[in-house]
Amino acid sequence: MSAPADVIDRLKTALGADGWSQDPDRLAPKLVEWRRRWSGNTPLLALPDTTAKVAAVVAICAEAGLAITPQGGNTGLVGGQIPQGEILLSTERLRAVRAADAFDDALVVEAGVTLAAAHEAALAAGRRFPLSLASEGSATIGGLISTNAGGTQVLRYGTMRDLVLGIEAVLPNGEVWNGLKRLRKDNTGYDLKHLLIGAEGTLGVITAASLKLFPILPSRAVAIVGLASPAKAIALLARAKDETGGALEAFELMGRVGVALAVKHLPGVREPLVEAHPWYVLIEAASGEPGAAEAALERLLARALEEGLIDDATLAQNATQAAAFWSLREGQSAAQNPEGACWKHDVSVPVSQIAAFMSDADVAVQRVAPGARIVAFGHVGDGNVHYNVLRPVDGSDAEHNDRREAGALAVHDIVARVGGSISAEHGLGVMKVGEALRYKSPTEIAAQRVVRAALDPHRIMNPRVLF
Amino acid sequence: MSAPADVIDRLKTALGADGWSQDPDRLAPKLVEWRRRWSGNTPLLALPDTTAKVAAVVAICAEAGLAITPQGGNTGLVGGQIPQGEILLSTERLRAVRAADAFDDALVVEAGVTLAAAHEAALAAGRRFPLSLASEGSATIGGLISTNAGGTQVLRYGTMRDLVLGIEAVLPNGEVWNGLKRLRKDNTGYDLKHLLIGAEGTLGVITAASLKLFPILPSRAVAIVGLASPAKAIALLARAKDETGGALEAFELMGRVGVALAVKHLPGVREPLVEAHPWYVLIEAASGEPGAAEAALERLLARALEEGLIDDATLAQNATQAAAFWSLREGQSAAQNPEGACWKHDVSVPVSQIAAFMSDADVAVQRVAPGARIVAFGHVGDGNVHYNVLRPVDGSDAEHNDRREAGALAVHDIVARVGGSISAEHGLGVMKVGEALRYKSPTEIAAQRVVRAALDPHRIMNPRVLF
Repeated sequence: MSAPADVIDRLKTALGADGWSQDPDRLAPKLVEWRRRWSGNTPLLALPDTTAKVAAVVAICAEAGLAITPQGGNTGLVGGQIPQGEILLSTERLRAVRAADAFDDALVVEAGVTLAAAHEAALAAGRRFPLSLASEGSATIGGLISTNAGGTQVLRYGTMRDLVLGIEAVLPNGEVWNGLKRLRKDNTGYDLKHLLIGAEGTLGVITAASLKLFPILPSRAVAIVGLASPAKAIALLARAKDETGGALEAFELMGRVGVALAVKHLPGVREPLVEAHPWYVLIEAASGEPGAAEAALERLLARALEEGLIDDATLAQNATQAAAFWSLREGQSAAQNPEGACWKHDVSVPVSQIAAFMSDADVAVQRVAPGARIVAFGHVGDGNVHYNVLRPVDGSDAEHNDRREAGALAVHDIVARVGGSISAEHGLGVMKVGEALRYKSPTEIAAQRVVRAALDPHRIMNPRVLF
Repeated sequence: MSAPADVIDRLKTALGADGWSQDPDRLAPKLVEWRRRWSGNTPLLALPDTTAKVAAVVAICAEAGLAITPQGGNTGLVGGQIPQGEILLSTERLRAVRAADAFDDALVVEAGVTLAAAHEAALAAGRRFPLSLASEGSATIGGLISTNAGGTQVLRYGTMRDLVLGIEAVLPNGEVWNGLKRLRKDNTGYDLKHLLIGAEGTLGVITAASLKLFPILPSRAVAIVGLASPAKAIALLARAKDETGGALEAFELMGRVGVALAVKHLPGVREPLVEAHPWYVLIEAASGEPGAAEAALERLLARALEEGLIDDATLAQNATQAAAFWSLREGQSAAQNPEGACWKHDVSVPVSQIAAFMSDADVAVQRVAPGARIVAFGHVGDGNVHYNVLRPVDGSDAEHNDRREAGALAVHDIVARVGGSISAEHGLGVMKVGEALRYKSPTEIAAQRVVRAALDPHRIMNPRVLF
């Protein structure tokens, strides 16, 4: 698609002098995905600083049939934010915190506010915004909503979808939809916000959102546990839910391979327990009742040890130790990088199927890549496993990369068989659309397509993304 | 619309001998809304007992251009479930509990399962399904999802929308969409289930759902509080959230008029506190930590009394006393019936705006109906007020009914001004569509209409409902 000069001129006029760029240096960081798997190009970087300017850009593009790729913090992992000739609409100047209200438990922020800034604004209002993930310093609210981001607190608070009270967005026809409510209950027809959440920028540009806030909890406890198998971890999870009564904030599984790599490669990361164990679980609980989280985890771990469900456990004695346990978990991905080529699968399965999935997938992977090292970890409390596969110790990166597609197919076929999802939290972007077509029913794909065509008949919004 | 005899015959054949009825006695209870505000008619009552039969009915109707009204437990309050010549598709024979899994925290039930039966199935799996409302013995899961039902536990657990993991539905083209996942994370395109939730049967027939389960909490406490104003109730709510750290399950406001009527008209309901107070709040908290809910409420009430935020409070000493507090709250609606004509408004506003809404609405109502008695009560923790207006003690029902529309307009205009919703939990049905058109933006109405036309181009699903 070529961009006619007169349309570009109209966009520049609408955006104002500070509102656009064609400077290669300014554009460069926005045209490359951070792991360098995708790079792109654009005739114009639009930098609107108001919702009205976003609307003007979309209206001009809709009229001219010019496509748009919206971009937040450029932390996406599936290529959906990198333009290939589309107008690049960045939300970086939509940075206002419009309101923070502890009575409404609502935080109203513009799309370009980072997750870290949203956390701060919530704290300043004496409340907490619980979504938590590694890229919080860069990832923006608009992008997090458009990809329905997950992270480590989903077990208790849900994904981004569950944390959104309302949305303001520019629809593909250039009209502003003001759905920026602060209501917990509103049954007046279809819930359009849920259509835009997770739509990866294909149904409009989210310009602002009102988000749910939660109380800050005074009691918090973190433990690390060593155990024999994923099956025991799942049994421990069910026990932990009962024992804490819904106060469980994280339940993160790690395998021995990943823990060993973190200890080997990451400065300051130590073995969490005296002996090595085949599997580890990081558990976090929090409660409004002083001392209750600690008490619940102590009870849980004592009983689980007694019954042989777990083999060892340590309750963090202070914030430093808790942070150390979390570094081990958060370093799982980084610790794999020095080890060579890696296939990454962001899948979810019903919690009851995790153990079966793990053992079936291991067999299937060994068939595709004998000797490959499985580094499975993740938010197993949500059924979400980052099922990564490192090349064999003495294998070649090239060979492992060649087998990537066959490996994904093998893993994802098992995921589909147990009723799982091939994209738990990263979305489909441009990367996984073909695979999604393999696993989703024609009925569902057709329904998604007619809805998209109805709202964006000229397919100008992120046209290469989704179906 | 007339129903051609040959199409009716095809439907009968598809449904089988037990699968339909034209018997007036069998049909009668399904053709009248329970408060007798709507009555209707149908050429055929379809009683499918499998998803495949639902699909056959919808496919035949789609081909013939014959409209369908789906009906669950017939407890709706806005007329959406009463056919006016459409085929009436009842889910009453879709009654299977397909699965209950404590590992997945998921309950898979068919659409015609009642809420009470879902509660039982959850308990049998050692878990809790928290949605709770007065009509639970009749209301069915399909209807509750289609209307995104709310009730008394929304403060902590959300509305029905928040409690659904997956849906199986027959789309308006007669195809079965199997979206019956048990996943907490699944980002693979638009979330179609959220489009069907709250769609009031206009985008298909929900045939089954997988629902979220929660731990059973051992510690539970109920208190009733007397205080001076809605503003103080809102301040108490914010305090209660902090003090209980998210363990608040209900926060229900009642006015003196409603409490006095309940004591007057309902057998066994007594004054909850020694003296009369202008306003009352019923507070319920629950925790996984034994004793924690009681401790948190005790702290909260002691501090609130000390600071003059509340004037009196009683913590229920046992389950009987807790049930008595709840009867007072649940009798608010029934206690109004003997008092004559009543306007009912099911509205929600941002919690921060409740006090302003109440005082502005009182002034506006008195202008329309001088001497009218305001009986406001509801789930104020969610901003959801059942703002009912009884005729003046010595007024006439006829006169009050004549003013109903003017009254609704006056109340709803104020709701709209403070960013609220004119239908918090009952939906729009056929009753509130006209009013919704007044308050919703043309942009949103247009978006809802194109989505509906895309999925149901012949508008066969509940055609008189929504936009």
